[in-house]
Amino acid sequence: MYKTVMLAHGAGGKQTSELIDQIFKVHFSNPDLTADDAAVLPIESGKIAFTTDGFIVSPYEFPGGNIGKLSICGTVNDLSCMGAKPLYLSCAFVIEEGFPMEKLEQIAEAMEKTAKEAGVKIVAGDTKVTGKGQVDNIFITTTGIGRILAGANPSGKLARQGDAVIVTGDIGRHGCAILLARDEFGIDANITSDCAPLWDTVKQMFNTTKNIHVIRDATRGGVGTVLYEIAGQSGVGIRLDAEKIPVAGEVSGICGMLGLEPLYLACEGRLVVFVPKEEALSVIETLHGCPYSKNAAIIGEVTSDMPGKVIMKTAIGSQTLLPQPGGELLPRIC
Amino acid sequence: MYKTVMLAHGAGGKQTSELIDQIFKVHFSNPDLTADDAAVLPIESGKIAFTTDGFIVSPYEFPGGNIGKLSICGTVNDLSCMGAKPLYLSCAFVIEEGFPMEKLEQIAEAMEKTAKEAGVKIVAGDTKVTGKGQVDNIFITTTGIGRILAGANPSGKLARQGDAVIVTGDIGRHGCAILLARDEFGIDANITSDCAPLWDTVKQMFNTTKNIHVIRDATRGGVGTVLYEIAGQSGVGIRLDAEKIPVAGEVSGICGMLGLEPLYLACEGRLVVFVPKEEALSVIETLHGCPYSKNAAIIGEVTSDMPGKVIMKTAIGSQTLLPQPGGELLPRIC
Repeated sequence: MYKTVMLAHGAGGKQTSELIDQIFKVHFSNPDLTADDAAVLPIESGKIAFTTDGFIVSPYEFPGGNIGKLSICGTVNDLSCMGAKPLYLSCAFVIEEGFPMEKLEQIAEAMEKTAKEAGVKIVAGDTKVTGKGQVDNIFITTTGIGRILAGANPSGKLARQGDAVIVTGDIGRHGCAILLARDEFGIDANITSDCAPLWDTVKQMFNTTKNIHVIRDATRGGVGTVLYEIAGQSGVGIRLDAEKIPVAGEVSGICGMLGLEPLYLACEGRLVVFVPKEEALSVIETLHGCPYSKNAAIIGEVTSDMPGKVIMKTAIGSQTLLPQPGGELLPRIC
Repeated sequence: MYKTVMLAHGAGGKQTSELIDQIFKVHFSNPDLTADDAAVLPIESGKIAFTTDGFIVSPYEFPGGNIGKLSICGTVNDLSCMGAKPLYLSCAFVIEEGFPMEKLEQIAEAMEKTAKEAGVKIVAGDTKVTGKGQVDNIFITTTGIGRILAGANPSGKLARQGDAVIVTGDIGRHGCAILLARDEFGIDANITSDCAPLWDTVKQMFNTTKNIHVIRDATRGGVGTVLYEIAGQSGVGIRLDAEKIPVAGEVSGICGMLGLEPLYLACEGRLVVFVPKEEALSVIETLHGCPYSKNAAIIGEVTSDMPGKVIMKTAIGSQTLLPQPGGELLPRIC
């Protein structure tokens, strides 16, 4: 096998077939994986969820994962947020000429492992190779199909006065991990990304109650951006209790040093969930029993005043308006 | 509106929403287009086809199309080759900081127009922005879901002795157009890409006969590469008649000047079709009535000798083995 990816691996001929056989078929093998132009899949009538995401994270390896794991988690989580069981994924690679074959294999391994954990099959793919300097290492676009659970209908438009606002774990880990992995600050800290596939977590929540108004994964822009989006889509206000927001000590420390707000740092394994207040405690109990949400907490509530705004009650009891997100905190986070 | 795409347009916050509202929602508008993490789509039970392709063509505009048109055609055609009516598409953009907003709008316009022609809805998307020099202008990954027609079951494995080999039009246009658009040769010729959405063409063929063994679009690697793949998958030989292969005069001229074989130049609007010999004439008649296949021709037949090989009968009557495709003729063709 070649030691690096070459232009010929993206040409659609003999070398492309070899790359597919030696790496992708080995790791993505399942009866539905196609060798033709498209996968042929049986489907039952009902509602499906369909989502796509391009992953361009830099660096492509980071504490807690790599671009392969991230690409599966991102799409699995987007489906999960719609109450949809992930069924099938496709993945399209754009790879820079000279990319180490060994690294590509590690990425494929991480995809295999994460897809297995999420119970989803990779059934279709595409590989393109650019010349040196025309893409930065490797980009992956994953697209997913999921089956929406009967009775599940979460949407950013459904937040209602009286809902409790839950986050499923401590926030800002992914953003912080990427920031430090770029090595621009010379800070040494032991922070791993929270990157994780959350279908099982969502399934457990729906087993607890079907009455879930909103589920969103707090990726680009972090929890703060997601809350502003939901406040806008639903036409409600959101009041957070700063003291209740779970942030790991190391993340909090880094944020202090660099003047960052953890609410705007990306997560890749955290959900923001809105449920009626009376359901909140049983949902939290369920979340505490799941592997990726042991620190789940109720961090606020939905109000009818200040529609479209997010207010934060600080530790000393004052209320401040959370600044509206905008601009680019950190590019290529996912 | 900003004149160029900025990093903030990919950050998932306010500017991302504006970009989506001002460009993508304007051009991709339909009731199924999602504002949530995934589109929710009704589906009937049966077989679906699912395919993905990354498009990295350079230059991103060329005579006969641009990367937007190409990205829709590529995915529509991959579904069509499975006998599947294209239903839904997703598109994920990776854009270089500083990319002209006007060009992005032209790309979205081309996508809108082509999707409309193919009768397919764009329902989900993603936008990422990299810093300058981290991606070359713009890459698009499109993924499609189609419904497989009852009775349709074309596959690269189904070529049989006695099948006629059809191409649906003159070959090598896309590869030639891209080659010239790169302006490396200083050749002035009036060649446009064949880039076209072919669902209607495929539908008309299936209306003519359900007895279609293989349909493949001859993209990367051209007709020659596709024929070698089919010969290998089906374990048959293929004998071509060089004189029957339709090649436009300009393409043939350029190929002569540059020492290229049109059989290995990419097409983006041409199908290779295998049908039993007795069905071939009625399929050709149907193809001649469709807008993108007026030059469709029977170019060869399937033989039981020389399995896995493609033989060409030349104009002077001799038989030569078509060289096995490999290496990289022209990178970033699609």
